[in-house]
Amino acid sequence: MEDNYHKLEVDGDFQSLKSTHNHTQANDTDSQVQILGGSQRDKMGSRTTLIIVAVVTAVLGITLGVLIGWFSSQAQFPDSEAYKIWLKALEGEDEAIREMILEELNADVIKENLRTLTAKPHLAGTPADKENAEYVKDKWDEHGLDSARIVPYNVLLSYPLKEKPNFVYILNPNGTEFYKSDPEEKDLDDGDKHPDTVPPFNAYAAEGTVEGDLVYVNYGRIEDFQKLDEELKVNVTGKICIARYGKIFRGDKVAIAESYGAVGMVLYSDPADYAVDGIETVYPNSWWLPDTGIQRGTLFVDNGDPLTWAYPSTENAYRYPESSVDLPKIPVQPIGYENAKHFLEQLDGDRAPDEWQGNIDGLANYNLGPGLLDERTVKLEVNNIRERKWTYNVIGMIRGSQEPDRYVILGNHRDAWVFGAVDPSSGTAVMLEITRAMGKLVKSGKWRPRRSIVFCSWAAEEYSLIGSTEWVEEFAKNLGSRSVAYLNVDISVQGNYTFRAKTTPNLNKAVFNAAQNVRDAPFPGHSETVYDTWLKRNPDGNQPKVSNLGSGSDYASFLGQLGISAVDLRYTFDSDLNISSYPLYHSMYETFHLVSEIMDRSFEYHLAVARVWAEMSRNLADSLILPFDCRDYTANLEKSIAALKEDYEQKMNEHDITFDAIDSAFGNLTSEAVAFHERIANSPLNDPFYVRRINDQLMYVDRAFTDPLGLPDRQLQRHVAFAPSSRDAYFGEAFPGIADLMFEIDKSPDPAAQWERVREHMSVIAFTIQSVATTIKDAESIDTLAPQR
Amino acid sequence: MEDNYHKLEVDGDFQSLKSTHNHTQANDTDSQVQILGGSQRDKMGSRTTLIIVAVVTAVLGITLGVLIGWFSSQAQFPDSEAYKIWLKALEGEDEAIREMILEELNADVIKENLRTLTAKPHLAGTPADKENAEYVKDKWDEHGLDSARIVPYNVLLSYPLKEKPNFVYILNPNGTEFYKSDPEEKDLDDGDKHPDTVPPFNAYAAEGTVEGDLVYVNYGRIEDFQKLDEELKVNVTGKICIARYGKIFRGDKVAIAESYGAVGMVLYSDPADYAVDGIETVYPNSWWLPDTGIQRGTLFVDNGDPLTWAYPSTENAYRYPESSVDLPKIPVQPIGYENAKHFLEQLDGDRAPDEWQGNIDGLANYNLGPGLLDERTVKLEVNNIRERKWTYNVIGMIRGSQEPDRYVILGNHRDAWVFGAVDPSSGTAVMLEITRAMGKLVKSGKWRPRRSIVFCSWAAEEYSLIGSTEWVEEFAKNLGSRSVAYLNVDISVQGNYTFRAKTTPNLNKAVFNAAQNVRDAPFPGHSETVYDTWLKRNPDGNQPKVSNLGSGSDYASFLGQLGISAVDLRYTFDSDLNISSYPLYHSMYETFHLVSEIMDRSFEYHLAVARVWAEMSRNLADSLILPFDCRDYTANLEKSIAALKEDYEQKMNEHDITFDAIDSAFGNLTSEAVAFHERIANSPLNDPFYVRRINDQLMYVDRAFTDPLGLPDRQLQRHVAFAPSSRDAYFGEAFPGIADLMFEIDKSPDPAAQWERVREHMSVIAFTIQSVATTIKDAESIDTLAPQR
Repeated sequence: MEDNYHKLEVDGDFQSLKSTHNHTQANDTDSQVQILGGSQRDKMGSRTTLIIVAVVTAVLGITLGVLIGWFSSQAQFPDSEAYKIWLKALEGEDEAIREMILEELNADVIKENLRTLTAKPHLAGTPADKENAEYVKDKWDEHGLDSARIVPYNVLLSYPLKEKPNFVYILNPNGTEFYKSDPEEKDLDDGDKHPDTVPPFNAYAAEGTVEGDLVYVNYGRIEDFQKLDEELKVNVTGKICIARYGKIFRGDKVAIAESYGAVGMVLYSDPADYAVDGIETVYPNSWWLPDTGIQRGTLFVDNGDPLTWAYPSTENAYRYPESSVDLPKIPVQPIGYENAKHFLEQLDGDRAPDEWQGNIDGLANYNLGPGLLDERTVKLEVNNIRERKWTYNVIGMIRGSQEPDRYVILGNHRDAWVFGAVDPSSGTAVMLEITRAMGKLVKSGKWRPRRSIVFCSWAAEEYSLIGSTEWVEEFAKNLGSRSVAYLNVDISVQGNYTFRAKTTPNLNKAVFNAAQNVRDAPFPGHSETVYDTWLKRNPDGNQPKVSNLGSGSDYASFLGQLGISAVDLRYTFDSDLNISSYPLYHSMYETFHLVSEIMDRSFEYHLAVARVWAEMSRNLADSLILPFDCRDYTANLEKSIAALKEDYEQKMNEHDITFDAIDSAFGNLTSEAVAFHERIANSPLNDPFYVRRINDQLMYVDRAFTDPLGLPDRQLQRHVAFAPSSRDAYFGEAFPGIADLMFEIDKSPDPAAQWERVREHMSVIAFTIQSVATTIKDAESIDTLAPQR
Repeated sequence: MEDNYHKLEVDGDFQSLKSTHNHTQANDTDSQVQILGGSQRDKMGSRTTLIIVAVVTAVLGITLGVLIGWFSSQAQFPDSEAYKIWLKALEGEDEAIREMILEELNADVIKENLRTLTAKPHLAGTPADKENAEYVKDKWDEHGLDSARIVPYNVLLSYPLKEKPNFVYILNPNGTEFYKSDPEEKDLDDGDKHPDTVPPFNAYAAEGTVEGDLVYVNYGRIEDFQKLDEELKVNVTGKICIARYGKIFRGDKVAIAESYGAVGMVLYSDPADYAVDGIETVYPNSWWLPDTGIQRGTLFVDNGDPLTWAYPSTENAYRYPESSVDLPKIPVQPIGYENAKHFLEQLDGDRAPDEWQGNIDGLANYNLGPGLLDERTVKLEVNNIRERKWTYNVIGMIRGSQEPDRYVILGNHRDAWVFGAVDPSSGTAVMLEITRAMGKLVKSGKWRPRRSIVFCSWAAEEYSLIGSTEWVEEFAKNLGSRSVAYLNVDISVQGNYTFRAKTTPNLNKAVFNAAQNVRDAPFPGHSETVYDTWLKRNPDGNQPKVSNLGSGSDYASFLGQLGISAVDLRYTFDSDLNISSYPLYHSMYETFHLVSEIMDRSFEYHLAVARVWAEMSRNLADSLILPFDCRDYTANLEKSIAALKEDYEQKMNEHDITFDAIDSAFGNLTSEAVAFHERIANSPLNDPFYVRRINDQLMYVDRAFTDPLGLPDRQLQRHVAFAPSSRDAYFGEAFPGIADLMFEIDKSPDPAAQWERVREHMSVIAFTIQSVATTIKDAESIDTLAPQR
């Protein structure tokens, strides 16, 4: 019916169109008058002449007519720049632009960026925070972004007091001091120490002094505390725990210790996890942690400013009283392994299980405690203060030519515990090079992306993803409806083994495509592209391995609060090393020296990340149809559902809970995903509204996975399919509500009520999956609002 | 910079475009060959001939050239139907279409629709529910909608038992029966009674029998109970309350009575509110309620199926145990005023205050109780059952030609307590006439709206807006991102005094415009258009009066859960009558006789509503730029904020809470609204993406007013600026969170904590208003993501 209900006369009345550029038509009218005047003066009489005149006149006439016809019809159509851009887009993406951007990116510039950025410590809330924000803003203005602004937030941060250091003591039974930990790391490479270096501490650890028996709790995971309690029969109530760093987010270690009744906690980095090549092969000669090195880090287990849960920390925003916020209630302090040895070698009690034994040189046995030899005790004195401070995001923008209200967002945090040469300045150095390269093209007039590209330099990420979370909260409405995707690079290079990506699965192909377009850094036996190395060194079947997004960097609130599809990209070390992070993580030794002399001398790994990040951004910003693939989402979920079944189905069945509704919804989603991509392949690409419609559907897939009511007991974690694990914020868990509700369900105070919640949440999952299926149904069809059932 | 970065050659290579409709070009090529052939046969030699030949050739050549030029350029551009539609839209809306729709709508057809729809009772969950759904679906198929489907939900409903009627008794002190209420209404007009007529009852009233003293509680409002408790010193704990209908939602009367400890409630309609012209001037001679007439109605104070809060009642959805749901815990029964007289005249105790006195014929004094004369007591026996039933929405769709993924949604509920000739069949009869008229135009090929028009025939509205709420919950993601507006007509004609509208204020102008385009029903001294009458009879300054949306019909979940802009339209009685509803509301006497013989004999009031509803829908579906006006929103909010200040500012200031943040955000919103509409007035309308962008911003204004966390203690009421009052669901309250939190704050168990909540919510309001301002900022500008501050 659509074919004939419009009786439009194509050459009809378009006078109503606003035409500000009609000089072409006017010029053409002038020419017409002149030529006609010329032909009227023609008076020759011979037959040949007649023919010549006829032919010439005909040719001229035809030519003229063609011109008139062309320009007349021209003027009839929307005579706008926008229309040209649209036609251009129909030709497909411009490979020349891709190459120009990739070629412009320069390892040496990245290196110089890093040198500048790491010249001094730049901790959130300090004067250096603001200086760096202004530096980034100035750079972006200079690079030619259309606009760049500083967006400040006033948030609760936490600092140790230089004049009143934190200590962990061993006390003799008479109360005298037997041993005292070092308040600072030692300078190992000339100039590593800076007056502004913040002493090692754990952010938000409670101020206070506690004294008591020490217990060794291995990594401080829930399973470690369970084992202590149930098998090893060591009660930590009223005790101070010493745990080694690694495996899970440190904030969870403290929260779990608190829940078991511990009154204080000491965290240290064991050589087994941070210096596996021996005491000599450490910084400044290697990337391994020296015995004086200490990992700083936050303990807050939620995201954003602790005082403004769910809302932005603008100047006049309401703030919860600090006492009502879920911050650590016990003092906690991190130490290095040289210091830790003093405590561990004194530990009384049984020998810890074999798998709990660490690798401190000269320490034959790790005992459990409780208590030290000779009735010595431990005193933990923490003098941290919590203070409201201004901190500064910087937001820059390249305005999209055709769809400026569609945002491809790149983000990296700027704040560092100390110099941050790896975390995060390796990422900042790369982002600044991307803005330079893209800005140059924009300034030159050679390129303007179809959609807007937004660059974000985040504040106070280290404290709990504060800058990004406050921004997501402030602009939730615009970001929720307009964001295409969020592409995060925190650390860009934490090793030189392989590229790695965490993704929402619909972006897998976009990452793979970008990686296939980028030559990898040259190293012995290297393959040609980033993708090739990745596939070879970390395969998952016939594709490179990708992981789910957990938390631990700034994508968390984009995905968790708003359901914005996201990736987290970096170059990393070999996972066979079995270490939880690069060894110098959050220590004072994350220096320019470390990166430029040890980790990436040529900066080509940095360059590789810059290129993949830039190319993926360009692709998302320029492609006519967004490069999302829903089928990769269903493939991922299929595995996750199978895993859920393996873990829980039998037990659920005993309580009359089945996977039937989930299976049914997932079946629908799977077939809708296939149908959707078939429809895309056959799209009428010459219809702007059709293109926008399809793109909106692609873009809103992760939105459809969100539930405004949030996961059980986690209201701001709204993505039903993926969230950080409740027992390790670093880990991206699939269908986390189930894992949470089923966790030790038999031990819950009211198992029947808990089973009822499981039953309810299983229904929510099925409903949510069905919502996603409905989102990608043909939007023209009544199926999107009234399914056949 | 945008002007020159594209080096596009306009006559370049567009071969890659899919061109399925190139017959125009082909035809032209044929013509070209014939004309050239003709000109080649011309061999004449005279001078005159020469000139003629030259001129003719030139003319032909030019003509030919124009054609070639025209069609060549034609083929270069997207050769699609979509493109023609787009060009057509640029010409503006088609007034001929408007007139065709308005003229097609026919009062006689509406009358016949109503006759059919009211032939028998059609209560939700009964076989008639499904039959009617099928009837509507068949009609829509016949009318030529592109698709129509039945969408069933399985929900908790409530019924009385015919075989075990509900009674209210007066018992003698010895327990014998002194009086018993009538279980049914009497047949007054031949055929009013039908075997399927459900006996009068209140849905979800608890099953049970209670006995005790009776207390008269006036309208059962919070202020009535307060007065009883504080001034009149009558304690209702353990008592049965008798309340007159009117003023507020009956469900709130029961909830308040419960909270005061009442054990049962009797509701009746007092002649003071329902039969003001005396006992003779009642149905079937007039529209006033006869003494046997009884108002049915639900008592559930939330929206949707009580068992599936927040999620759709699909077959396998999780359902809360009934015991955990907030349904009435006491038995409640409605009676007529003849029956009520028996109870009221027996009431002991003090005379009720003057303003509590009703107008039952022959009853000089309304006493308060507690208790009846001669130590008689009241027994209330309610045998209702709650039962899960299938109920049926019908969803129909006219696919939009250009933006099928933008939905203009019309809704009306189909279920009635009995015949429902006013509520809701007067609306259904009108909606069916709109689908016929629009369907006819679509079938004829004369029209297809730019955006999709969705028609919804709701199930089980009477029970608690169940059909619409479940649908909103099921399709929340698609509706949230794609809905333009929801236009509700429940009752279309409940009086013949004036048209009235409840709106989100951004739609005021669209309603006014539609009303200005529609001739009003003819009545003595009538004005020309619906707008004229409305303005004359219910003015608010120089405009007709509009009200805020509360609850009480199916727009509630669209606005409250999703923030979809909405209107509720009807023709109504003179508000000076000071009655809460038309008198026969929810009684058995809402018959075809009532409407066709008393309320709207010519059906021209129905026709007027049909036309305004249809025209507003067409306008929203066809206009290039959506006819929303944000300035009307700010004008409305300005008054609301002033009212808030008048009520609360002084008291808040005493607790160091100010309106500063709200004033500041509102100032921003006001100036953004002005700037936004200036920008729209100067839009480059020839850019489809620009148009879509502006429309998305207009469309999302009410979305931006929502907070996913909901209002204080009302998680699914997400609109921060408007919600049903917590003490009267019928009333649309502005900034309802404040009214709720401030209500009797001094009497709250912990006033300091409550003040803290006020402080927090004031901040949420300021933030939300600022979010709306940000939503309508220029989407190209960095201001949308990084404001200057």
